[in-house]
Amino acid sequence: MEVLNQHKCHGGWLKQCEHASVSTGCIMRLSVYLPPQALTQELPVVYWLSGLTCTDENFVQKAGAFKTAAELGLILVMPDTSPRGTDFDGKAVPNDDGYDLGQGAGFYVNATQAPWKTHFQMYDYVVSELPELIDNNFPSNGQQALSGHSMGGHGALVMGLRNPENYSSISAFSPICHPVDCPWGQKAFTAYLGEDQDNWRAYDASLLLAEASQVVPILVDQGTDDQFLEEQLGGQSLIDAAEKSGHALTYNWREGYDHSYFFISSFIENHLRFHHNHFANQAGTHLTDPSEEE
Amino acid sequence: MEVLNQHKCHGGWLKQCEHASVSTGCIMRLSVYLPPQALTQELPVVYWLSGLTCTDENFVQKAGAFKTAAELGLILVMPDTSPRGTDFDGKAVPNDDGYDLGQGAGFYVNATQAPWKTHFQMYDYVVSELPELIDNNFPSNGQQALSGHSMGGHGALVMGLRNPENYSSISAFSPICHPVDCPWGQKAFTAYLGEDQDNWRAYDASLLLAEASQVVPILVDQGTDDQFLEEQLGGQSLIDAAEKSGHALTYNWREGYDHSYFFISSFIENHLRFHHNHFANQAGTHLTDPSEEE
Repeated sequence: MEVLNQHKCHGGWLKQCEHASVSTGCIMRLSVYLPPQALTQELPVVYWLSGLTCTDENFVQKAGAFKTAAELGLILVMPDTSPRGTDFDGKAVPNDDGYDLGQGAGFYVNATQAPWKTHFQMYDYVVSELPELIDNNFPSNGQQALSGHSMGGHGALVMGLRNPENYSSISAFSPICHPVDCPWGQKAFTAYLGEDQDNWRAYDASLLLAEASQVVPILVDQGTDDQFLEEQLGGQSLIDAAEKSGHALTYNWREGYDHSYFFISSFIENHLRFHHNHFANQAGTHLTDPSEEE
Repeated sequence: MEVLNQHKCHGGWLKQCEHASVSTGCIMRLSVYLPPQALTQELPVVYWLSGLTCTDENFVQKAGAFKTAAELGLILVMPDTSPRGTDFDGKAVPNDDGYDLGQGAGFYVNATQAPWKTHFQMYDYVVSELPELIDNNFPSNGQQALSGHSMGGHGALVMGLRNPENYSSISAFSPICHPVDCPWGQKAFTAYLGEDQDNWRAYDASLLLAEASQVVPILVDQGTDDQFLEEQLGGQSLIDAAEKSGHALTYNWREGYDHSYFFISSFIENHLRFHHNHFANQAGTHLTDPSEEE
């Protein structure tokens, strides 16, 4: 892994890196924030998954998260949102004219359809390859949490719901909660996963939550003035799924907030404290199983 | 004044606006952050002056300042760094190929030389026109402070030193402290003010501080790994001027920090608290006059 540049920030270090990814078959960029405690301790890691059109840099520049990460001793890892550029054979990674498909829009799935399937393996990249890369290069202590925004909120929920043994907690801002039933999700899933909607179910947070046996603590924040709320995000589906399955879900409606990073920056401290609390308490008691409550 | 867009942030509102400026003879953009207290109270205003190449948006997106402004009840005003676009007659505002002269590089002076003098009147714009605009459109209480970065740190120091009656305190990150003696300053001052260096003295913070009779409290933060420190910033000149004149100057060297907004975001809370403290204590006692100390 190559460090492209680094900046001191809140006593720690922000490093932008790139590496040759096996999962996606191309060079992937990411940013990593190491809080000051990383000089002397192994620390938990929060993975941040960004939304449509973003790179690793949007959260880095706009979220204002590093002060809290420095205070709590959290490593933050910001991967890119898709494969980009050229692959190992020098061929261009496929793209699409739309901002909502192709580069910048990986949707955190493993694509099964041409031309996407060769590179668009973002699920494997984030769930498996990236943690190994981080553990081998930075002082992580093996504890992990997931957070993300919009398409990245979808990714965080899906990955956390499918791998409760990997993550202590999950959080999301303005997530796409029910992608099988919204235009963004239908366009992306048709292209990446094909026409058979049965193959979409493994990437739909509301369907996964409704059928989950165990889930880790989940926190969602959603602005009431979000311009994508009605057509794309489907928050009520996730709330309904939690009620149906009996799993706990903290879903906060935030009056007057929109879909922007100004919303994320207003509540990112809450999300990092939420994850920190579940790292601290993590002694096998963080999983909730509705059958145990009776 | 027209509000172009607004976002809720930390309980308050960020508004990007534009207005027809008399000083600069063109449409000027600015951003204003109104903390939640602005709904019910008149509040002090901190003006933020950005550096070379910036617009009003850089600080807005990258500084992470709004949480503290919301806590302390400070209105933040972020003007642009120069005239831009076209003037009232539809003629293009003059520009230069360099990033360090023309649009994005107003240097906060009143230009006296063609072609700049028609529009590049940023000193008058920030010192006189902008406060009147803010007072007429937002719930300000008449108390003001100045802060800025690099070229904007120069602007904040110069304006604060020349108008101690207008501002309760001044602060700067990585300011150009002695522009008459560095390449950026010499290029800009020659173009805007002409060859006669006597006319440059009114815009040099180190020269002004050395000869000031009264100064308001000044806070400066400077990273030790700033790539512009040696050639452009001249921090030691400002320190020497403070010693020579006997005026107080808090000049913090910050180990390992560079010239970026990651540095600003690490210490902006300190600067806002500094200004807040001097607003709170402002009862005519904030001016320091070395003759009074003896």
